[in-house]
Amino acid sequence: MDYREVTGGREFVARLDHGRDWREQIEAFAADEGIDAAFFFGLGAVQDAELYFYDQDEKTYFPETFEEPLEVAACVGNVSHLEGERFAHTHAVLSRADGTALAGHLNRATTFAGELYLREFDTELERAHDETTELDLWPL
Amino acid sequence: MDYREVTGGREFVARLDHGRDWREQIEAFAADEGIDAAFFFGLGAVQDAELYFYDQDEKTYFPETFEEPLEVAACVGNVSHLEGERFAHTHAVLSRADGTALAGHLNRATTFAGELYLREFDTELERAHDETTELDLWPL
Amino acid sequence: MDYREVTGGREFVARLDHGRDWREQIEAFAADEGIDAAFFFGLGAVQDAELYFYDQDEKTYFPETFEEPLEVAACVGNVSHLEGERFAHTHAVLSRADGTALAGHLNRATTFAGELYLREFDTELERAHDETTELDLWPL
Repeated sequence: MDYREVTGGREFVARLDHGRDWREQIEAFAADEGIDAAFFFGLGAVQDAELYFYDQDEKTYFPETFEEPLEVAACVGNVSHLEGERFAHTHAVLSRADGTALAGHLNRATTFAGELYLREFDTELERAHDETTELDLWPL
Repeated sequence: MDYREVTGGREFVARLDHGRDWREQIEAFAADEGIDAAFFFGLGAVQDAELYFYDQDEKTYFPETFEEPLEVAACVGNVSHLEGERFAHTHAVLSRADGTALAGHLNRATTFAGELYLREFDTELERAHDETTELDLWPL
Repeated sequence: MDYREVTGGREFVARLDHGRDWREQIEAFAADEGIDAAFFFGLGAVQDAELYFYDQDEKTYFPETFEEPLEVAACVGNVSHLEGERFAHTHAVLSRADGTALAGHLNRATTFAGELYLREFDTELERAHDETTELDLWPL
């Protein structure tokens, strides 16, 4: 396991904007505040969602779209740099009215309501192409 | 996205009481310790659970009750004030013996065992009625 | 609820090793760095997984094995001592290509890719047999 000891920076609590994309507004916030590295945790609800599933053989993301209101039971993600932009790598666990759960890599979702805790780290994390997985990972 | 930079306060690790309500004991702990704002993260197991699903059109919570033992695969929530009381906004991902997952807004659940990390913030968060969603949200 | 106020220690961000067991590498890292108490949060993907479900009546874990690629939508766990070794109590929410979620106590899983945030606490947590649940819990 490759790792880096980091020093905690600023901490934020946030209320996500209704009607706006869940991930995009985290990225916009990170850019506005100059956040180069962070982990975040959230909960709330969305009006729809597009999850990505990474096919480990084909090395491609396949999307699965849900055009329905869903709770965000848990959202775990991080902020780092990808090709010169802030990228919020965002995973989420969603649920339907009957309680059944959906989960995965959250590409986009229209926020109904959301609450976030973000912890910045005083370091820089830049993603780079990893040959084994063909994902953009941190070279720690 | 509305947000507030916060300063970290005290941190706690906890073992939830067997047989007691999961959310209620977090709220009682927050009141005892005078915690006005916090995020928490947990895992464990419960003997039953009541999840709330918020109907985004009807603007009402609908309960879904599960009278069965469930793992708490992930619990993400926060503590703030609501109508003069500490409220632990608690989302959880639960699972059955076959591994299938349930998730949502956790209203109540009888704790079998539970472990929690709570991080306090030196700020005050007070929920207020939000006209768009008809939820009680933070005016940050 | 029994709890302990703790002081935050070191913080780490990590990239989990491809092809290596998810939990075992967290434990090896904790041993290498002398981490006696911590919570961690992760996301990623695995090539297979074995979840444990604790039967609350029988007081035994029953395994459920999934021999398929899965996203790790959320991983919440902690590090403490159990019978003289570092133990990473690890819960995870996993998902299939169609978005459906599996979740529970993660015994083992072959990592495809994974990202972790770990926060150490300047305390020692040692698990001990709990008579009520027959689990190894923290005597806080």
